[in-house]
Amino acid sequence: MGSEAEHVLTLDTLNPNVIELQYAVRGPIVIRATEIENEIKAGLKKPFAQVVKANIGDCHATGQKPITYIRQVLALCTYPELLKSNDFPEDAKAQARRILEGCKGQSIGSYTDSCGLMVVREDVANYIGERDGYPADAKDIVLCTGASDGIKSVMTLLLTAKGGIDAAGFMIPIPQYPLYSAAISEFGAYPIPYYLNEKNKWALDVSELERAITEAKPNCKPRAIVVINPGNPTGSVLTKENIKDVIKFAHRHKLFIMADEVYQHNIWAEGAEFVSFKKVLQEMGAPYNKMELASFMSASKGFMGECGYRGGYAEVINLQPEVRAHYYKSISAKLCPPVSGQAVIDCIVNPPKPGGPSYDTYMKEKDDVLAKLKEKAKFVTELFNSIEGISCNEVMGAMYAFPRIYLPEKAVEAAKAAGQTPDSFYCFALLEEMGICTVPGSGFREEPGTFHFRTTILPQMDELKAVLNKFKDFHLNFLAKYK
Amino acid sequence: MGSEAEHVLTLDTLNPNVIELQYAVRGPIVIRATEIENEIKAGLKKPFAQVVKANIGDCHATGQKPITYIRQVLALCTYPELLKSNDFPEDAKAQARRILEGCKGQSIGSYTDSCGLMVVREDVANYIGERDGYPADAKDIVLCTGASDGIKSVMTLLLTAKGGIDAAGFMIPIPQYPLYSAAISEFGAYPIPYYLNEKNKWALDVSELERAITEAKPNCKPRAIVVINPGNPTGSVLTKENIKDVIKFAHRHKLFIMADEVYQHNIWAEGAEFVSFKKVLQEMGAPYNKMELASFMSASKGFMGECGYRGGYAEVINLQPEVRAHYYKSISAKLCPPVSGQAVIDCIVNPPKPGGPSYDTYMKEKDDVLAKLKEKAKFVTELFNSIEGISCNEVMGAMYAFPRIYLPEKAVEAAKAAGQTPDSFYCFALLEEMGICTVPGSGFREEPGTFHFRTTILPQMDELKAVLNKFKDFHLNFLAKYK
Ligand SMILES: Cc1ncc(COP(=O)(O)O)c(C=O)c1O
Ligand SMILES: Cc1ncc(COP(=O)(O)O)c(C=O)c1O
Repeated sequence: MGSEAEHVLTLDTLNPNVIELQYAVRGPIVIRATEIENEIKAGLKKPFAQVVKANIGDCHATGQKPITYIRQVLALCTYPELLKSNDFPEDAKAQARRILEGCKGQSIGSYTDSCGLMVVREDVANYIGERDGYPADAKDIVLCTGASDGIKSVMTLLLTAKGGIDAAGFMIPIPQYPLYSAAISEFGAYPIPYYLNEKNKWALDVSELERAITEAKPNCKPRAIVVINPGNPTGSVLTKENIKDVIKFAHRHKLFIMADEVYQHNIWAEGAEFVSFKKVLQEMGAPYNKMELASFMSASKGFMGECGYRGGYAEVINLQPEVRAHYYKSISAKLCPPVSGQAVIDCIVNPPKPGGPSYDTYMKEKDDVLAKLKEKAKFVTELFNSIEGISCNEVMGAMYAFPRIYLPEKAVEAAKAAGQTPDSFYCFALLEEMGICTVPGSGFREEPGTFHFRTTILPQMDELKAVLNKFKDFHLNFLAKYK
Repeated sequence: MGSEAEHVLTLDTLNPNVIELQYAVRGPIVIRATEIENEIKAGLKKPFAQVVKANIGDCHATGQKPITYIRQVLALCTYPELLKSNDFPEDAKAQARRILEGCKGQSIGSYTDSCGLMVVREDVANYIGERDGYPADAKDIVLCTGASDGIKSVMTLLLTAKGGIDAAGFMIPIPQYPLYSAAISEFGAYPIPYYLNEKNKWALDVSELERAITEAKPNCKPRAIVVINPGNPTGSVLTKENIKDVIKFAHRHKLFIMADEVYQHNIWAEGAEFVSFKKVLQEMGAPYNKMELASFMSASKGFMGECGYRGGYAEVINLQPEVRAHYYKSISAKLCPPVSGQAVIDCIVNPPKPGGPSYDTYMKEKDDVLAKLKEKAKFVTELFNSIEGISCNEVMGAMYAFPRIYLPEKAVEAAKAAGQTPDSFYCFALLEEMGICTVPGSGFREEPGTFHFRTTILPQMDELKAVLNKFKDFHLNFLAKYK
């Protein structure tokens, strides 16, 4: 494979931040799952017929059907010839025309402004205004290539371009969605982990936030706090009170708030409700309503699950005008987010109106997806809590369960012998024996000494039941084996 | 607007790399052009009816029509219901089916692998194999969100995560496409500018490369050389001999080669031909054919001009396997490039076949776009060279002319007095007086004491003629004014 001497890039010269970066949702276990799929294709005998990928929140991959209206608008934007067809409803045509009017040359093949099409940004602003009861400004809306891209762009603003104790510190929840830790590694920034309280529905305790920032202050320049609500991987939904506490904390320590609210449509628990950071901040009034806040939304989750279109937006409020100008500039070399993804966002924030030809179907499809997810959230929570050696907070929102597994000492030792974390060891066994691909809790980080795994609640109910029954067998066997 | 004290982000705390970053293609002159457009909308009288945006290579924005076949395949992938329609040709349906088969849940709304769909990567590999006469490996193909994203991902691998004399050095041509300087600023890397030889059709002189790297070596760790061929903004097309020289140079100095070949379909000059770096490297045999090379391609240029879809790919060869694994991992947190952009790439590398129902139209549309661009390349070259005080290398390829303007001493002084570079001063005047938006040469960097601007050759021929006539008047007036 060539000696080191011949290569510019070796493990010694490769960007060390890249070497350090980990993204468990697509990590070693997923690579192994894909290998197994190929082994099955090649005719290798396995104790299962196929691999169930419960590692990633990929709605359509697990059989959820696209919302018809969204795809109609997209098809019309893509191939405007179809605007002449009688097979498409008038409201879809009107929305497609509006988007095309916003595009240069009336083609979604032209670049938009780096922040996205103004018509979509305006529709997003209206959506937020209606959601929160406080107006939003289209100038504060920046469309992006999935929420992932929006998050990284805002983090980029907060970096210090310095290392050591001058590196930018980002407070991130533990457990967290590993995009954050991956970006922190890539950027050479400093992670400030704060533990969510598993005993209290994964709430944020201010005392824990204080502990975390106090410990971190000598080691970095704390710049921002990341909050994921509804939570991934935790499935938690924060109360308004809890959000207020976080805002006050951020104000006290002069932190930029990054609110990852991509699951805002995914609320399942009785009594739980989605309240945006923006709304709470506005309700709290001065001085809080002047704080810098970025909120992220995605086309990938909710009821639409249009992951492949890479649509998303950031609402970034209270930036100094000069800073906002630099923000716009900083994303301009990317040229623009995919225009079809922008169009998906437009359909989500500006859906068919009552009385229009698409309204009933749209609402039926949307409600149907959400009702099924709600049913699965309940089912999964109950099932996990019925199994010996497992406890699981209620899946109140989002698309994941993050059960805690109590592993026997012998299993911990066997893992150590195999050079794996105990939960990786467990998840690998689950994959090899049952063909079920989950993500070990260590990939999201977890409180030392505790072990978890994350599974999505996305498979269709029949499959989910079958999978969880197999899982139960596996788990009890595992406990027996290492007792 | 809030005092500094209230903001986390101020000009003092904002990431200094972001403050430094410049991207002229969307810089101050383009911001002003948009303002003028709004002024016109608001009823302000201007000496022109509309602004002509010749600042960006945005094909559909200037009236180029999408290739029908591409949009048909995309519409079918988007809304598979259309597969039942008789209005779509069978070959487009077959290609859409193949792409959908590659998608999880047969939906382009699911995430693909981070490197993109395997079927598209295979098609890309076949395309390259046929183009070069040397096989390509699908594992070396990484699809991306426009070439821009692919370029930044490869640069990321090459960073050192250190500053000062340990920062990674990237050799970039002057003039260059400003994505490179922008990324270098953002990453805190070190630019190593080498001047293209304007007197010799913007060729790369090895002596100049040697000068550049020798001067840079005490100041950074040189890691890569960027070559843009066909050239943006220069319009040059490199000869095979010149490419060989560059490869030998890179080998001598152990540099990773980044070949930006997004304009590979855009060759206009008699006798010029596109030869890929990959092909030359293979032809040269050992030890050169083991060198690390990344080549970038885009859905945005060529004959398709599908900028808004953000499709692109990188072919990255001769990476050490462990390094390649880190490369894959490093892009995994982005989840995947937009699937519709991947589908565009597929149509480009795997177009309709002779005998199929779409072949004739496809070829006609493609040839038509390319023939028109060729005509405009010639027209623009000749026109610029016919004007006093301007010289312009032949637009041999790509989509831009980069004429040199010889400005009178008084104009240079007036610019200085206005606090602008002389070519910015000139381009701003051109915008305010004629409504023509171009990019000052300084945005691409240029040899000190020389002045240029970049204009695209994209407007439709009638408009282009009208624009260039107005330009000529402006220019002669400008010369007269500052004589
Ligand atoms: C909490 C959270 N934020 C952001 C994202 C990024 O999603 P996307 O980039 O597809 O919009 C995800 C995806 O799973 C997520 O779970
Ligand atoms: C030389 C060059 N490289 C890369 C790009 C990036 O194009 P995209 O990101 O749209 O693929 C451009 C766009 O103008 C370009 O001119």
